[in-house]
Amino acid sequence: MNSIGRNYQITLIGSSHGNLVGVVIDGVPVARKINTDLINKALSRRKPGQSKITTDRKEDDRLIIETGILNGVTTGGPIVAYVRNADIDSSYYDEIVDTPRPGHADYPAKIKYNNAHDHRGGGRFSGRMTIGLVIAGEIARQILSENNINVVAYTKSIGAIEANVVNTAREFIYGNIIRTADPASIDEQVGLIMSLKREGDSCGGIVECIIDGLPVAVGEPFFDSIESRIAHMIFSIPAVKGIEFGSGFNASKMLGSEHNDPLTLEEGRIRTIGNNAGGILGGLSNGMQVIFRTAFKPTSSIKLLQKTVDIERNKEVDLKVRGRHDPCIVPRAVPVVDASTCCVLLDLMIEGGFLR
Amino acid sequence: MNSIGRNYQITLIGSSHGNLVGVVIDGVPVARKINTDLINKALSRRKPGQSKITTDRKEDDRLIIETGILNGVTTGGPIVAYVRNADIDSSYYDEIVDTPRPGHADYPAKIKYNNAHDHRGGGRFSGRMTIGLVIAGEIARQILSENNINVVAYTKSIGAIEANVVNTAREFIYGNIIRTADPASIDEQVGLIMSLKREGDSCGGIVECIIDGLPVAVGEPFFDSIESRIAHMIFSIPAVKGIEFGSGFNASKMLGSEHNDPLTLEEGRIRTIGNNAGGILGGLSNGMQVIFRTAFKPTSSIKLLQKTVDIERNKEVDLKVRGRHDPCIVPRAVPVVDASTCCVLLDLMIEGGFLR
Amino acid sequence: MNSIGRNYQITLIGSSHGNLVGVVIDGVPVARKINTDLINKALSRRKPGQSKITTDRKEDDRLIIETGILNGVTTGGPIVAYVRNADIDSSYYDEIVDTPRPGHADYPAKIKYNNAHDHRGGGRFSGRMTIGLVIAGEIARQILSENNINVVAYTKSIGAIEANVVNTAREFIYGNIIRTADPASIDEQVGLIMSLKREGDSCGGIVECIIDGLPVAVGEPFFDSIESRIAHMIFSIPAVKGIEFGSGFNASKMLGSEHNDPLTLEEGRIRTIGNNAGGILGGLSNGMQVIFRTAFKPTSSIKLLQKTVDIERNKEVDLKVRGRHDPCIVPRAVPVVDASTCCVLLDLMIEGGFLR
Amino acid sequence: MNSIGRNYQITLIGSSHGNLVGVVIDGVPVARKINTDLINKALSRRKPGQSKITTDRKEDDRLIIETGILNGVTTGGPIVAYVRNADIDSSYYDEIVDTPRPGHADYPAKIKYNNAHDHRGGGRFSGRMTIGLVIAGEIARQILSENNINVVAYTKSIGAIEANVVNTAREFIYGNIIRTADPASIDEQVGLIMSLKREGDSCGGIVECIIDGLPVAVGEPFFDSIESRIAHMIFSIPAVKGIEFGSGFNASKMLGSEHNDPLTLEEGRIRTIGNNAGGILGGLSNGMQVIFRTAFKPTSSIKLLQKTVDIERNKEVDLKVRGRHDPCIVPRAVPVVDASTCCVLLDLMIEGGFLR
Repeated sequence: MNSIGRNYQITLIGSSHGNLVGVVIDGVPVARKINTDLINKALSRRKPGQSKITTDRKEDDRLIIETGILNGVTTGGPIVAYVRNADIDSSYYDEIVDTPRPGHADYPAKIKYNNAHDHRGGGRFSGRMTIGLVIAGEIARQILSENNINVVAYTKSIGAIEANVVNTAREFIYGNIIRTADPASIDEQVGLIMSLKREGDSCGGIVECIIDGLPVAVGEPFFDSIESRIAHMIFSIPAVKGIEFGSGFNASKMLGSEHNDPLTLEEGRIRTIGNNAGGILGGLSNGMQVIFRTAFKPTSSIKLLQKTVDIERNKEVDLKVRGRHDPCIVPRAVPVVDASTCCVLLDLMIEGGFLR
Repeated sequence: MNSIGRNYQITLIGSSHGNLVGVVIDGVPVARKINTDLINKALSRRKPGQSKITTDRKEDDRLIIETGILNGVTTGGPIVAYVRNADIDSSYYDEIVDTPRPGHADYPAKIKYNNAHDHRGGGRFSGRMTIGLVIAGEIARQILSENNINVVAYTKSIGAIEANVVNTAREFIYGNIIRTADPASIDEQVGLIMSLKREGDSCGGIVECIIDGLPVAVGEPFFDSIESRIAHMIFSIPAVKGIEFGSGFNASKMLGSEHNDPLTLEEGRIRTIGNNAGGILGGLSNGMQVIFRTAFKPTSSIKLLQKTVDIERNKEVDLKVRGRHDPCIVPRAVPVVDASTCCVLLDLMIEGGFLR
Repeated sequence: MNSIGRNYQITLIGSSHGNLVGVVIDGVPVARKINTDLINKALSRRKPGQSKITTDRKEDDRLIIETGILNGVTTGGPIVAYVRNADIDSSYYDEIVDTPRPGHADYPAKIKYNNAHDHRGGGRFSGRMTIGLVIAGEIARQILSENNINVVAYTKSIGAIEANVVNTAREFIYGNIIRTADPASIDEQVGLIMSLKREGDSCGGIVECIIDGLPVAVGEPFFDSIESRIAHMIFSIPAVKGIEFGSGFNASKMLGSEHNDPLTLEEGRIRTIGNNAGGILGGLSNGMQVIFRTAFKPTSSIKLLQKTVDIERNKEVDLKVRGRHDPCIVPRAVPVVDASTCCVLLDLMIEGGFLR
Repeated sequence: MNSIGRNYQITLIGSSHGNLVGVVIDGVPVARKINTDLINKALSRRKPGQSKITTDRKEDDRLIIETGILNGVTTGGPIVAYVRNADIDSSYYDEIVDTPRPGHADYPAKIKYNNAHDHRGGGRFSGRMTIGLVIAGEIARQILSENNINVVAYTKSIGAIEANVVNTAREFIYGNIIRTADPASIDEQVGLIMSLKREGDSCGGIVECIIDGLPVAVGEPFFDSIESRIAHMIFSIPAVKGIEFGSGFNASKMLGSEHNDPLTLEEGRIRTIGNNAGGILGGLSNGMQVIFRTAFKPTSSIKLLQKTVDIERNKEVDLKVRGRHDPCIVPRAVPVVDASTCCVLLDLMIEGGFLR
């Protein structure tokens, strides 16, 4: 199904080259003030053509809210919000309808939808669908903020170039086109992306996300742990290949005596020394910072010659993918990881009865 | 909630030291033959005390099916199946009710349940809850087998000791106590675990899982991709810190030209050259082998002295965790990952209309 | 929540005096041809101002489909479809925001939404919300038709004036403004409504609905019987006070020997003699015609003086409801009952694996 | 599916002649004291063989709670509770496996489950399944009581013999075998049932249910009105043919000026004069007593000769139903309607954030 969430329930609407792309949100807490400027700001951080390292597709991506917010306040009815698609060039996609692009959903989607799905621009498999996540996430963020919960994501690595975590202020992160938390890494990372852009190749990277202010005991065992719900959401974002919380994969190499975070008292509050748990124990928040990392694969659309199969003619063919694509999706994925996480947290906060 | 699954819906019942541990399954396909010997066999592969490298807790873990299967055939009603707990020693847990064990859910669970949850033996946060997953998974596996879908998991690493993938036959994997697919790694991995057992310490490891025979186009965009649904389930298993599909985190360091799997024809069938995608594109199966890896942290219960806080008395104290625990949970987690994956796949097969 | 349906899932969007009123449908079967003219035709049968016995509000109610149907075929993505509101006069509703209208949702809605809901024109409690049901139902009907399932509703009584069931052809029913299946009842029923219109009073009535062609064994015990699912849906329609299937309330006065429908063979097919069951046994269809009746209360908005309370000023006041309202909602409710039933049936058909 | 409820989620387990009949409840509010004696008392009011007007099947129906309640307090884990079946005589049901009983689910169930369902004693279509509803409902009632919400059902009519509502105290209602609220009706109603018992025939009747103490604004538009949710539940009870709220079907014959309940102030509280609304406006509670009536058909199992079809041999045959059955199910349905309603109300109270 195209919906996620038990209480703050999101349905993504539209398609990459259709009339619009957006979201319907049911279960929105009632009587909350929503600042639409902040949503537009987030959309502009996700939008294509925003810097030299992104795709050339130009979209204004101005938010339209049809219903669910009246006089700036949530009404309790579903919110319908979207942006209209403008800079569409679908001609190319009819050419390749029988020759699935390597690394794309083209082949299984063609089988699943019996050729009836909107394949133009990747249709509903396009990264453009994440606009709906950004809209829903920014609304969620404003409600979380009232509860002093803050979420921020940033680029941890571009290809093999890792960055440190120096400055996680949103102003800094969105003040650089890499969306890194490390001023020292920017030039080298931009350099890598620009050189791949010239070559027609692409690379991936890692996005890290931290959550501060979550109260103790958010999460719903057995099957709705924070990790389960965040992972479910994050793997919906196109190009994600892995996710890890706290010590993550590295935990597999540690001893228990190293990995356990001892409990201590800090000004009367229970805290842990170290945070290998990533703020989550038994699926529940323990009051420490929640931290997770998401691995993105390199953009599948590259300009180099690739081998594929012509499905209708049943023969192998060479394919040169055209269209406008990001050489590295990571900088534009940062606001998406960030917003998606807000959706999950708000959902769990409502479920746990934490929302005030 | 304690339930998962849209069509093959599982609710875990019981607690570690309560009367029983098991599962209720709603949405079971009707009129299917179920072999209960195979379920008992799987339970014996998960059960404690099965080898020198596991905990000393002794449980018979004999399957009881109360309803939902009549004369060996599914009736269409919910299946209620469980094992009774026998070798229970809960006395210790009352001693530590105010001093949360580091690395355990004790602290947030105490807050969440207002002291009313069954904390004995970890209650519903215990690895023992995975018995219900094994039961449900083995029933799912039998139905998947009729559709020629095979799932197998194995130990990929114990601590820092990695193994190769040499023999993925279930007989071989369950013929060694590490549950590895690599005969060469067994001695060293057993040696590590035994030495940690002597020291009272613990280690983690990685479980890999492969799925063969899945038809093309299983998975339900946008939010019910194979990755989303498997990750949601796998993060429910205690001690999991990360999951990656196909090339996983390594994909973040690759170029698009390396990572894309070109399409080709093999005896008239569409296949890819290479499988960085891990058998999934756009959340849908592409007909190749699905492959994913799960990172387990070291067992939290270690016998060494640790620091914690006495919550009622509001002071820092030293804690020595007693009880019987596995120095490395990975070998016993293998059948759990395996079975849990079967649950998810059957659920998605029903949803996609693939089941025959 | 504002959604219904497990597989064919409907979310109603908009409000009576907001930008639009419509529906989002997730889980739409893929690659189905949809005739939008037929949807517009159904909307015109529901729309206000269509005859002398309906409200004077004039709405064009032209269907806009934003996404989910491409080149007349369903894509598998959610359908977003709506009509824009035009003839809006909200001024009156601000006057009565503190004086709940008797028989309306005003009072509990004011409490529930803390004054933040869109109260104009009844907001989301308005009968105008049923536009979304008609759109979703007409799409469902077209898919049901391919499976030879036909649903038709008609007016059974207006006030105390009962009609016979003479002609259940859709052409006849929608060829008269009462939407009756009995030519002999029209004049008297129109006369009653016109006289109430003059007096500023209102009346209710009963809508009957029949379903032909449903295969045997549709319905999902224990909790998703045909009756449970239809009743859940039908009670969502504003002004409904009761529902009964087959012999209904009259069954309570019958003997078992009268009520049981004996089974017989008709040209080799199993049928029942009589249909007190209303085509449903144990919640499952038995191959006979499904039949149910829905009771509608008189329109709450009447022009006569009524007593109410000024909530803010905490005193009793007299109220004269203005605005444009139907003296009897039944004729316009007929296409709504009809379409809503189609939604439920398609949902159950998908769930039971019946759809071809 | 065999589950109902969004927050207080119930799954009915077992079958009429299987090992057990009961319920699994997920989403139980944590740390609530539960009195199991009260549940057993309710089961004894539902159980067979309790009086001369009920079936002769003798069942002890003693409650077993396996998990979810520890030391009399809810733990937050799912509750598994059931009674074991004892007085089983299934021999007869194999005789009639090919000759569906008129008025029973036998025929469509045989088709749906491909002969694999547990048909003994009606299997999962038996009224015996309502034991699970009584257990879940009595737990819900105890939590509702803490919130001063009281639910009580009683027999309104037996066949055509209607009763008045004189005394709705539970002690009175369960102090007479008819479960009527009218002392004057008992003898005649008992007489009718006894005479039908002698003749081998059966009758139906009407159960009325009232809810006091519900706060204003319970219910979740658009699709989860109180009426929708109660009707969904009530139609799951075997033999129900209709439901009406407040003025019900009679509303269809009233004028708006008669039907509207004017608002007034009573000691500063907002109340209505009259209660045609049955305590519900726009699907939301308005603070008045909620009232609804449920019509039960006559028991299908009668001892008189009936016509049916031998499905395997494809011929019409005569059938004489044996087994032990109630000549009128209404008295035993009273505690079921009552308990089922408690389940729905608790579910809606949690959803609306009303529970303290």
